[in-house]
Amino acid sequence: MSTHVLAFDGDDTLWHNESRFHLTQTALRELLRRHVPDADVDSHLYEVEMRNLGLYGYGVKSFTLSMIETAIELTKGQVPAADLEVILGWGKRMLGEPTELLDGVEAALKEASGRYSLLLITKGDLFDQESKLARSGLGEMFAGVEILSDKTMDSYRSLLRRRGIKPEEFIMVGNSLRSDIAPVVALGARAVHIPYHVTWNHEHLPEEDLPATGWYRLDRIGELGALLESIDQPATKGA
Amino acid sequence: MSTHVLAFDGDDTLWHNESRFHLTQTALRELLRRHVPDADVDSHLYEVEMRNLGLYGYGVKSFTLSMIETAIELTKGQVPAADLEVILGWGKRMLGEPTELLDGVEAALKEASGRYSLLLITKGDLFDQESKLARSGLGEMFAGVEILSDKTMDSYRSLLRRRGIKPEEFIMVGNSLRSDIAPVVALGARAVHIPYHVTWNHEHLPEEDLPATGWYRLDRIGELGALLESIDQPATKGA
Repeated sequence: MSTHVLAFDGDDTLWHNESRFHLTQTALRELLRRHVPDADVDSHLYEVEMRNLGLYGYGVKSFTLSMIETAIELTKGQVPAADLEVILGWGKRMLGEPTELLDGVEAALKEASGRYSLLLITKGDLFDQESKLARSGLGEMFAGVEILSDKTMDSYRSLLRRRGIKPEEFIMVGNSLRSDIAPVVALGARAVHIPYHVTWNHEHLPEEDLPATGWYRLDRIGELGALLESIDQPATKGA
Repeated sequence: MSTHVLAFDGDDTLWHNESRFHLTQTALRELLRRHVPDADVDSHLYEVEMRNLGLYGYGVKSFTLSMIETAIELTKGQVPAADLEVILGWGKRMLGEPTELLDGVEAALKEASGRYSLLLITKGDLFDQESKLARSGLGEMFAGVEILSDKTMDSYRSLLRRRGIKPEEFIMVGNSLRSDIAPVVALGARAVHIPYHVTWNHEHLPEEDLPATGWYRLDRIGELGALLESIDQPATKGA
């Protein structure tokens, strides 16, 4: 079997993302502790995020709005506006931060680009993702960029169809079992899971929901070349 | 000359949008009048929106965040959290409202789809735009949907290139001179301007910045068929 298209997730696969949300969430816990020392900020925030997901979708702006809502709810409206202004500032800082690549990303992409046509397939806020990609300096590496509102079997299916890619010619590389691995393997394509050291609750998937075959797991992106060499002999580049 | 691809803007071309922002902005003025009777809410909000545009991009979530920032700034931090919760609620209501089509849209699209390949080209928040399109019931009319973070000459150029469309085969229909008309005409394609009764400041363009030729103006979308008939004799459908 020969693979032509190698696709990468962005957040926490090519660049750091979730660790920033964690840092901000730690700051939110500390800010709210001054008002409501006993509140379970993490679980309340997660509850608010899940409640809002169908209206807001993913991304930093959604996260900021949900943090503000959480702060108001947990303090029963007693949080001063100045604290909410601080939260607004955290969101802006997250949106403006430089894109920090994971170790080994540039070398791995460069190596892979000699044998495969590379796609970036990321989800979340369009504007924020485009901006992160621009700041990453990786834009030129990719033959195409797809920013999806969500990564489901349906969204991958229509992406492959639109680009004329057969599932057996496609390998997806990413850190999320729920978004990058399960839906891709379910379509008959293959996937490579490279875990990140922090995972958002929402991206967790119980082991029993994972496909038995069709995917691989690596510790770091630097091992990708050797894995591809062993599982795949591409005939020609380009799909 | 024969045209193959007819593209439509979404907001305020196919469905109502700006009028909802106006309604919400009126509510914000009234809410803030109770705290700061003399404040110029409209110009301060516009200033905040423009300051945030490079970080937030367009859309309801950006607008909500900028309304909250405006409320905090104009009241010098004195606005109660309960009022900010009301503002959060306005944003959610806007995101959840049914998509309300402009008069004559369905008939015009149906007529045009017999002669052209139809594209939807809209800008703003990916998640919100997909959701509006889904609720519009118009999804099946379009051969393709493009949601851009901004509509500039560059973004139109790369869209046309990606889809293999020549500028002379392309007509864009929209309500914004800045986003739908000027950049398209600058690429050598044609455009049809159908003004909406409210225009966001940011979308205004001084008359002297408008191209002299290459575009047309209609009062309503129902006149589109007759205009296309008069300016265009497509050979075959599909691009």
